[in-house]
Amino acid sequence: MNDEATRVAELRTLVREFVDERNWRQFHTPKNISMALAIEAAELMEHFQWLEPGESRAVADEPEKLAAVAEELADVLCYALALANELNVDVARAMADKMVKNRRKYPVEEFRGRYGPEDRREPNS
Amino acid sequence: MNDEATRVAELRTLVREFVDERNWRQFHTPKNISMALAIEAAELMEHFQWLEPGESRAVADEPEKLAAVAEELADVLCYALALANELNVDVARAMADKMVKNRRKYPVEEFRGRYGPEDRREPNS
Amino acid sequence: MNDEATRVAELRTLVREFVDERNWRQFHTPKNISMALAIEAAELMEHFQWLEPGESRAVADEPEKLAAVAEELADVLCYALALANELNVDVARAMADKMVKNRRKYPVEEFRGRYGPEDRREPNS
Amino acid sequence: MNDEATRVAELRTLVREFVDERNWRQFHTPKNISMALAIEAAELMEHFQWLEPGESRAVADEPEKLAAVAEELADVLCYALALANELNVDVARAMADKMVKNRRKYPVEEFRGRYGPEDRREPNS
Repeated sequence: MNDEATRVAELRTLVREFVDERNWRQFHTPKNISMALAIEAAELMEHFQWLEPGESRAVADEPEKLAAVAEELADVLCYALALANELNVDVARAMADKMVKNRRKYPVEEFRGRYGPEDRREPNS
Repeated sequence: MNDEATRVAELRTLVREFVDERNWRQFHTPKNISMALAIEAAELMEHFQWLEPGESRAVADEPEKLAAVAEELADVLCYALALANELNVDVARAMADKMVKNRRKYPVEEFRGRYGPEDRREPNS
Repeated sequence: MNDEATRVAELRTLVREFVDERNWRQFHTPKNISMALAIEAAELMEHFQWLEPGESRAVADEPEKLAAVAEELADVLCYALALANELNVDVARAMADKMVKNRRKYPVEEFRGRYGPEDRREPNS
Repeated sequence: MNDEATRVAELRTLVREFVDERNWRQFHTPKNISMALAIEAAELMEHFQWLEPGESRAVADEPEKLAAVAEELADVLCYALALANELNVDVARAMADKMVKNRRKYPVEEFRGRYGPEDRREPNS
């Protein structure tokens, strides 16, 4: 499996089968999955907690740390797709819709080089 | 776009282009993205915070609430893929690898109907 | 030490001395401490993740689990006070102020028995 | 109210009365409160999300931002004490106990100037 070849639906099936084989849908209320997702997001964050921003970029070149981070990222995605499965949300559709909204909220000419309205820099920095 | 037809790489490109057009990679240190991801996961969780578990399932049938939840889920996925972009992690590969590990950690015969080692129920409940 | 006798300032000193002895203020940027706090909050949540709401109440009567939860709660509070130390925030003052605001936002007659504006129940349930 | 004069028990009473007046203990399962706490911790983190570490320190000198941060910190503490109220945990005791454990885990001679075992710097830097 790799990102070039894999369709989102295949990843959703991967998660669904794992859950169904264990009869775990009974635990997979949206409430519980949203908690699990937030917990995994915190575990991901833990890898970067005390690092300087630049040090956090260097993780890309440290195979052992990168593998640990990739595993936490996989956990986040598994729960995100488990939630999509429970609620019947098409995530490609939801992402495309959100990007339309984001493009309207953050027009290039105003936000190029500025992270948000809070950022007092001039655009294009 | 929909989950049946869309490859993961297409979603990654969607995110990458949005970020590059705004020259936002300068803010996208893994440290910062991991924070953003955790914040979006918390916003997702907020929708279910005070609901009974069963009430949280009912969100699937409330179009307005479901749309709000889908939007937060999209935010989570956008940052998850932004992190994959920064660190060059293949997420389909990472998920497939993690599922192999999960299958070993949670054998069906032992965990069917039990959410984990903490769960004192007998298997198959 | 106990909650009846201990002043908030004493707890702040407890944290400050631990941090200073290790020369850790260099790591205690508000950004880093806020991450640490969110991570500890997630670890606390982990204890309740798969439990039914009623099961989560029963933790009060299970000494071993309660001790584990109390330890995570202590971690949350240590980082909360570490942040107060770095930013010179008086937390008793901040809590009292927030409660005034909360009382205005959630008047008793409107929110008695309702968790928020989202809650469609009648007041007084 | 201020940190010098206020005992922890007084802050717990402040929270308890607010909750009881609204008949909100029905919503305050430990599971729900732990979610609320994690959500408030994320809102606190949001203030520092895109800032450089040094910029995050400068918040101490910006009265408007500092007030917003202090309010989020108050929210975190309110839910932390609400959880202590539900579970009958003495938080001063729990913090003192945790500090004993932390002192053993992070001896000064080994961790002075190092944030943890992950940190490859020599002690005393």
